[in-house]
Amino acid sequence: MRPKIYLFGDSITEASFDDGGWGASLAHHFSRSVDVVLRGYSGYNTRWALHVLERVFPAVDSGGEGVGDGVVPLAVTVFFGANDACLPDRCSAFQHVPLHEYKQNLLAIVSFLKKRWPTTLVLLITPPPIDEEGRLQYPYVENPLGLPERTNEAAGAYAGACVAVAGECGIPVVDLWTKMQQFPNWEKAYLRDGLHLTQIGNKIVFEEVVTSLREKGLSLEILPVDLPLISEIDPNDPLKDFQK
Amino acid sequence: MRPKIYLFGDSITEASFDDGGWGASLAHHFSRSVDVVLRGYSGYNTRWALHVLERVFPAVDSGGEGVGDGVVPLAVTVFFGANDACLPDRCSAFQHVPLHEYKQNLLAIVSFLKKRWPTTLVLLITPPPIDEEGRLQYPYVENPLGLPERTNEAAGAYAGACVAVAGECGIPVVDLWTKMQQFPNWEKAYLRDGLHLTQIGNKIVFEEVVTSLREKGLSLEILPVDLPLISEIDPNDPLKDFQK
Repeated sequence: MRPKIYLFGDSITEASFDDGGWGASLAHHFSRSVDVVLRGYSGYNTRWALHVLERVFPAVDSGGEGVGDGVVPLAVTVFFGANDACLPDRCSAFQHVPLHEYKQNLLAIVSFLKKRWPTTLVLLITPPPIDEEGRLQYPYVENPLGLPERTNEAAGAYAGACVAVAGECGIPVVDLWTKMQQFPNWEKAYLRDGLHLTQIGNKIVFEEVVTSLREKGLSLEILPVDLPLISEIDPNDPLKDFQK
Repeated sequence: MRPKIYLFGDSITEASFDDGGWGASLAHHFSRSVDVVLRGYSGYNTRWALHVLERVFPAVDSGGEGVGDGVVPLAVTVFFGANDACLPDRCSAFQHVPLHEYKQNLLAIVSFLKKRWPTTLVLLITPPPIDEEGRLQYPYVENPLGLPERTNEAAGAYAGACVAVAGECGIPVVDLWTKMQQFPNWEKAYLRDGLHLTQIGNKIVFEEVVTSLREKGLSLEILPVDLPLISEIDPNDPLKDFQK
């Protein structure tokens, strides 16, 4: 059985298999070693995520260790906060989760995953920065106030809470909010509508996730390859390699 | 548990999660309904595929129905022939499988899958056409003869055998070899090295596979969606939708 990495998150995860998406790039990177499993739910915040956790990662009948198929995943990326950080008095208020609750919810999600699978790597990813101009230009819902429903400052507070949770739990985190803003023109280069990622933005997430996984021993050099590589097959006696 | 579609094949399958790849596009298309599982093995022909079939699709201990995780897949795409069709007297001869054996191997693969999972849709895909000029321009191995190791004529014979197998088994087939050649400049538009697919070539495979799946009842309209869509959630009482 090939091991698995689950991608659990909101629309930035759900869309991660679109052209050049970070999820598809991970699946390509690990094409002979890991199954990358998509569990992205557009629009979801951590409050809703907590409500569906048991359904997204069902326990097996026998024992309780392992997801529905009985296989303990190598890793789970947890990538929420962009919706929690919607402002409570703007047009997407129904997705808003207060900062304190966001932190508690994230702790609860990590705790659930670590209890279910003590050996699985849980990797947090902070929400990306927000380009408020982009958010006004590409509204998702009617916006009578004419004010952005997300701000970069609010996203930064949630990113900070996410980093704090990683620290408290002793698990790795990709601080996307900070990382992206280190580059010039991040607003347009990495974000296509002020929130969702361009192909270059996706590339950053992919590279940061691969780096974090590698630091925890989950790399192409270490993970076993599924079946002989063509480069290892003896052209004079190919079947020999399949009889091992 | 979310249902699965396996992609079983050679390098054109293994590379299908690269930017714009047909596998990634399928995973994106079914992002809330199906897990698309990559089982591509670069360089493999049907002879080698037959040798690894039990390891790629392991039986469960109990019962025997279902793959390792006990879940019967919705569909399996079987996409071999590009390596079988290597000419026996050219530089990639060790991958060559005679046409008659290719047909028998493909029948055996289909038979194995239908025996293991009688309700699973098995979808054959023929090898693509070959641009011989491209194959000379981008050699994979040393080529002292200076002749292409694959020809379009040979690929066509294997594609024909694949279509015949589908007919004999009463299963659908994507005849990529014929389909692609219906368009002008297919040699360069769809093939990046005379064999492997460009992004537009990948798009054709994606669309043909989606069409074939739809004709067999496997479409977004019919498959259940995993958890409530954001568009269905009541903004005035979001949690209501998670308590069902």
